Amino acid sequence: MSDTKMQPFDQLVRELSSLPGFGKRSAQRAALSLLKNRSKIGKLVQQLKTVDEQVCECQTCGNLSLANPCHICTDSKRNPNTICVVEGVDDLWALERSEFFDGVYHVLGGVVSAIDGIGPEDLRFDELLKRTEANPQITEVILALGASVDGSTTGHLLARRLKEKGVKVTTLARGMPMGSEVDYLDAGTLTLALNGRMEL
Amino acid sequence: MSDTKMQPFDQLVRELSSLPGFGKRSAQRAALSLLKNRSKIGKLVQQLKTVDEQVCECQTCGNLSLANPCHICTDSKRNPNTICVVEGVDDLWALERSEFFDGVYHVLGGVVSAIDGIGPEDLRFDELLKRTEANPQITEVILALGASVDGSTTGHLLARRLKEKGVKVTTLARGMPMGSEVDYLDAGTLTLALNGRMEL
Repeated sequence: MSDTKMQPFDQLVRELSSLPGFGKRSAQRAALSLLKNRSKIGKLVQQLKTVDEQVCECQTCGNLSLANPCHICTDSKRNPNTICVVEGVDDLWALERSEFFDGVYHVLGGVVSAIDGIGPEDLRFDELLKRTEANPQITEVILALGASVDGSTTGHLLARRLKEKGVKVTTLARGMPMGSEVDYLDAGTLTLALNGRMEL
Repeated sequence: MSDTKMQPFDQLVRELSSLPGFGKRSAQRAALSLLKNRSKIGKLVQQLKTVDEQVCECQTCGNLSLANPCHICTDSKRNPNTICVVEGVDDLWALERSEFFDGVYHVLGGVVSAIDGIGPEDLRFDELLKRTEANPQITEVILALGASVDGSTTGHLLARRLKEKGVKVTTLARGMPMGSEVDYLDAGTLTLALNGRMEL
């Protein structure tokens, strides 16, 4: 379909369509819009290079930042004894946006998945265990993983290993999301919400 | 929302989200996926530069091509006496994919629009009129514009001016699209399809 008789253009479309959320058609539209407005190409190239040069991975928590260790790990106002474990950097950013958590993070880099052949050794499991060993003052590890089967499996695996080291492990509450109605919720969520009911 | 405390990253997200089909959220996902797979950044930068350097606009028809005049205008197998007028380069490519048309093209660069303040002077109207004047052997101009109000207005304006020069002007047939069912079609399309009925 992208047989435009322009090899470089088709290659750019291929490159763009390998990004998440981009189909071949939308990649072609984006590439065309760049060609209609050439100054954007230079800006985009510049931004891509700057990001590539300046953004690095924090060796402590796995966050992406302009510094290593990152601005969260080095922030003296945060509590270094509570670690929140997340699947990816985007989850970390989502939690930061809520501005509630004042501890530090640990990015796992995914969840274990039998189908995709991802085991604990492919994730930053060992780094987390070593981190808790090296810092015995750590009081709590909060698992903020997805509420999927793979997320739960990963949580159970991690919790077992962490508890063996004597670390307190908690997980995000399961229940009604904000603004939801009881009659629209699925049975699983309702069961969990009932199970975790709180006294007022 | 993209307050990631990383200025270059947020700027890249802004740059990406200005592309069509990209929201802020999907731009952030795309930027993150590039950072997870750094080799992609280099490839993308290279492709963007190559496209910027090599792709140019054909001064005859307005097509984007690696050469000026483009590979369609210089193709001796094509009939230079039938010009198909399209709104944009993407429309030209869509027609080329159908592999039916063997004439040449003229890209208008849009349609007249009262709301957006786009008049004939903002489009490649004059270039088309000059082209037909300079080539009296042109036998037909086919208007392949969108079936919207603005598309029809543009078609009428163009047709009037072209007919004044004695050029035969046709437009794409309006009717049932392939695979459609009569009871799903809107009244306007059905009226046009009835009006343009063909003897079998």
